[in-house]
Amino acid sequence: MEFPSYVGSMRGRSFLNTNDFTRDEIEEVLRASRDLRERFRHRMPTPYLSGKTLFMLFYNRSLRTRNSFEAGMFQLGGHAHFLSPQDVYTPTLPEDMIPYQTESIADVARVLSRYGDAIAIRIYGDAAKWHIGRGHRVIQEFAKWSSIPVLNMEDDLYHPFQALADIMTITDVALNPSGKKFVVSYAYSGGLKPLAVPQSCILIGTMFGMDVVLAQPKGFELEDQVIRACRENVDRYGGSFTIVNDMRTAFEGADFVYPKAWSPKVFFPPHNGRVDKEGAVEYQNRFKDWICNQELMDLTNRGKYMHCGPADRGQEVTDDVIDNPRYSLYFEQAENRLHVQKAVMSMVLG
Amino acid sequence: MEFPSYVGSMRGRSFLNTNDFTRDEIEEVLRASRDLRERFRHRMPTPYLSGKTLFMLFYNRSLRTRNSFEAGMFQLGGHAHFLSPQDVYTPTLPEDMIPYQTESIADVARVLSRYGDAIAIRIYGDAAKWHIGRGHRVIQEFAKWSSIPVLNMEDDLYHPFQALADIMTITDVALNPSGKKFVVSYAYSGGLKPLAVPQSCILIGTMFGMDVVLAQPKGFELEDQVIRACRENVDRYGGSFTIVNDMRTAFEGADFVYPKAWSPKVFFPPHNGRVDKEGAVEYQNRFKDWICNQELMDLTNRGKYMHCGPADRGQEVTDDVIDNPRYSLYFEQAENRLHVQKAVMSMVLG
Amino acid sequence: MEFPSYVGSMRGRSFLNTNDFTRDEIEEVLRASRDLRERFRHRMPTPYLSGKTLFMLFYNRSLRTRNSFEAGMFQLGGHAHFLSPQDVYTPTLPEDMIPYQTESIADVARVLSRYGDAIAIRIYGDAAKWHIGRGHRVIQEFAKWSSIPVLNMEDDLYHPFQALADIMTITDVALNPSGKKFVVSYAYSGGLKPLAVPQSCILIGTMFGMDVVLAQPKGFELEDQVIRACRENVDRYGGSFTIVNDMRTAFEGADFVYPKAWSPKVFFPPHNGRVDKEGAVEYQNRFKDWICNQELMDLTNRGKYMHCGPADRGQEVTDDVIDNPRYSLYFEQAENRLHVQKAVMSMVLG
Repeated sequence: MEFPSYVGSMRGRSFLNTNDFTRDEIEEVLRASRDLRERFRHRMPTPYLSGKTLFMLFYNRSLRTRNSFEAGMFQLGGHAHFLSPQDVYTPTLPEDMIPYQTESIADVARVLSRYGDAIAIRIYGDAAKWHIGRGHRVIQEFAKWSSIPVLNMEDDLYHPFQALADIMTITDVALNPSGKKFVVSYAYSGGLKPLAVPQSCILIGTMFGMDVVLAQPKGFELEDQVIRACRENVDRYGGSFTIVNDMRTAFEGADFVYPKAWSPKVFFPPHNGRVDKEGAVEYQNRFKDWICNQELMDLTNRGKYMHCGPADRGQEVTDDVIDNPRYSLYFEQAENRLHVQKAVMSMVLG
Repeated sequence: MEFPSYVGSMRGRSFLNTNDFTRDEIEEVLRASRDLRERFRHRMPTPYLSGKTLFMLFYNRSLRTRNSFEAGMFQLGGHAHFLSPQDVYTPTLPEDMIPYQTESIADVARVLSRYGDAIAIRIYGDAAKWHIGRGHRVIQEFAKWSSIPVLNMEDDLYHPFQALADIMTITDVALNPSGKKFVVSYAYSGGLKPLAVPQSCILIGTMFGMDVVLAQPKGFELEDQVIRACRENVDRYGGSFTIVNDMRTAFEGADFVYPKAWSPKVFFPPHNGRVDKEGAVEYQNRFKDWICNQELMDLTNRGKYMHCGPADRGQEVTDDVIDNPRYSLYFEQAENRLHVQKAVMSMVLG
Repeated sequence: MEFPSYVGSMRGRSFLNTNDFTRDEIEEVLRASRDLRERFRHRMPTPYLSGKTLFMLFYNRSLRTRNSFEAGMFQLGGHAHFLSPQDVYTPTLPEDMIPYQTESIADVARVLSRYGDAIAIRIYGDAAKWHIGRGHRVIQEFAKWSSIPVLNMEDDLYHPFQALADIMTITDVALNPSGKKFVVSYAYSGGLKPLAVPQSCILIGTMFGMDVVLAQPKGFELEDQVIRACRENVDRYGGSFTIVNDMRTAFEGADFVYPKAWSPKVFFPPHNGRVDKEGAVEYQNRFKDWICNQELMDLTNRGKYMHCGPADRGQEVTDDVIDNPRYSLYFEQAENRLHVQKAVMSMVLG
């Protein structure tokens, strides 16, 4: 069987953040994703990773990520291990080691590198002690010690496979995304949520030359280095990047809206001296009016509604929006997770 | 490779209750099961579901069901995901949603439908809040929203794959089950148990024209709609259906006996205003003499002992009965679970 | 495809303790292991267990064992189920049964034997109630009732696959291990640890005619029957077996050192009337100077450092020893776990 040319085209590379790749490389991922989607819809065999093993380490729960990686690996002829930290000896950064309960990431990464072909990790929130960036450091530590590719299944800074699925979904609707208005907006939730999705969204939007608008209440600023990277993307790839503090202004004339909750970073280290969950919840509870509803959708340019899932219905979005197939790309985004992940795995492991 | 004609013969159908199918359809399942058993015993390859993915969602623990579905799927060339509700975001009925912990079944079913080929669910008892019928509603809700087949791995009303294994085991022993006396009897256990197994047993027995006798103490009545369905089966398929309140009478001349614990429904909603576990345990503790022993087996027509497993030894049955190969079909029933499940999966997913 | 001659060469045998096999048999395992290692390094297909299922039952957590068995089974064309006792109904010895929570090992073993091809178990410490030998009895009980091979993934007496990986690693370095000095030494850890690794180490060393030195403080004696078996190995296979109470003496001129913690058996049944964890910890805390460091390594004959992992860094060993590639075989041992397990599985299941 002849394999498509993308199989193995990025052999050995880790995937921690979309912005570590060029736009050309990301476009190759999307081409591979569409090819794999076609083959999946016709249930054609795609044994590009035959005999290959993926170790999936979930510090946080997951529906889409776990099932799309596990099914995707199998559809490519490989096999994925579902690992909970407590099933193994909780791979841990040097400063967090607890005798007899944890094992250093350095050791775990080197052992797994001897048995299989890639390591995928999800870690944010409580699992990363709400010290923003610590989850990402865990994944970087795995990448440092591993001799096989490391895949970021969402940490406390980035969710790169979600961003890939999102740009695939956008370019399914708008063949050329340049000049399309893409609104990434805060939306209310009572829960504590990481910055990963909005940060990866604005990074991928600016990489594709879109007119990206970030809408957020004061106090919900994203990380400085991400904002800087977005501005650099605009310089390199065109389009624009604007920050506004009002949902209505943002939604006017929008082609794509992505209303999604995150929690205000100023209540958490390193931006705060301590983890102040109560303070964060109390603060974000002032913004219950940041909900995506019919009235806001009416302001858009027949805009499409997007969300990574699971959406907090009645808080982030009303049912009539998320369940309206005229607006909602919710299930298309979820499906595309499968295809983009199979594409990247085929490219880095094939 | 030429596939047997049963592969794909019921493509796309869900399997929630044996009585949703005709006797002809169930007999086709049994023929497929026997064919697959032969192939398994000779370890012949059966790649009828090559590349197909089954999502297994276990709200309750399981030995037979989990291992027979997971191994069965693999033996057919497919792959099964083992999902605990807490690993994903606890798929939940609309009225039971808890923000940030649960996700609506409607959303979970539609997402998984994009990634793979079938969803199997086990839910009863505490997981269904001991509101009898709520577990079945969870599975119906999955079936409503899923675009791929849904399989009932035991809920609080039905255990259809157990019933298939049971009728396969019965027809292994008695080629023609018509006119054979099949006793489904209450047997004591101190634990709280759902109605699923006895209800599916009397449904399958009456579908196969057996003389089905349900033996139970007062207060252990099964659900009215199941009793009605059994009477309709008798009208349609012949045989008889009788309810008695005495184990000895029931066992006299029996060809097959199935002594199995369940808990009295009158202590639980919707038959009671509240969940009264203590009341149920106290009531069922009056019936410790409902135990299947040698003396009772002597009343039968060289009858066979059956149980879905795990049996509560010393409560439901004495060791000398369950461990006596002259009587006991215990391990044959367990084995046949594998074969009937592979048959149904081949038929609905192939 | 022609399979290598070792596939199926020990069909049907269980693997509970290396000393149940002859040296010739173990050497055949090592030849098969090296063949499989070569094929793995060149990513050649090895479908020797195509369609075969392994049931892995982990009463204790694991990184190396779980991932090497699961990946190994997949690399051989098979599939491994990851089972936690609480996911099934906690398979249990007759005397430990708890109604409605446990199921007898006799029943579990016979059911699983109908679905697949081998059962692997890990059980020691709390899971075996710290009654030394009870974990091994659990595995023996599985082997008694199972009609398919049973594999010991570490119990409270033996860790045979670790011993195979260790002797493979030793014979990678020293083609002929006869006459090489192999030191198995107590090393401090604050945690409670089973006797399995040191006992399997001295058994495999004496089987290969090495000059085995067991170094331990008073009170850390290993089980009498293991010591006797080591002396019988010396009679049969040559070499020597010595016990000393001093780490320095032991390390002098050593070719291989294996400093590893275990807990003093005299605080646990059957050697003590009750489980006295506090007494054990207090006693072992007197031996914090039993740590493998640079100074001790300097006494050896350019000796190699070995450990089964995970090592308690700063207690059992200093970082400069375990991380020094001149000394340390730590990751080679971990890797060889994969190859020896694939070899044994190919031989007993093929």
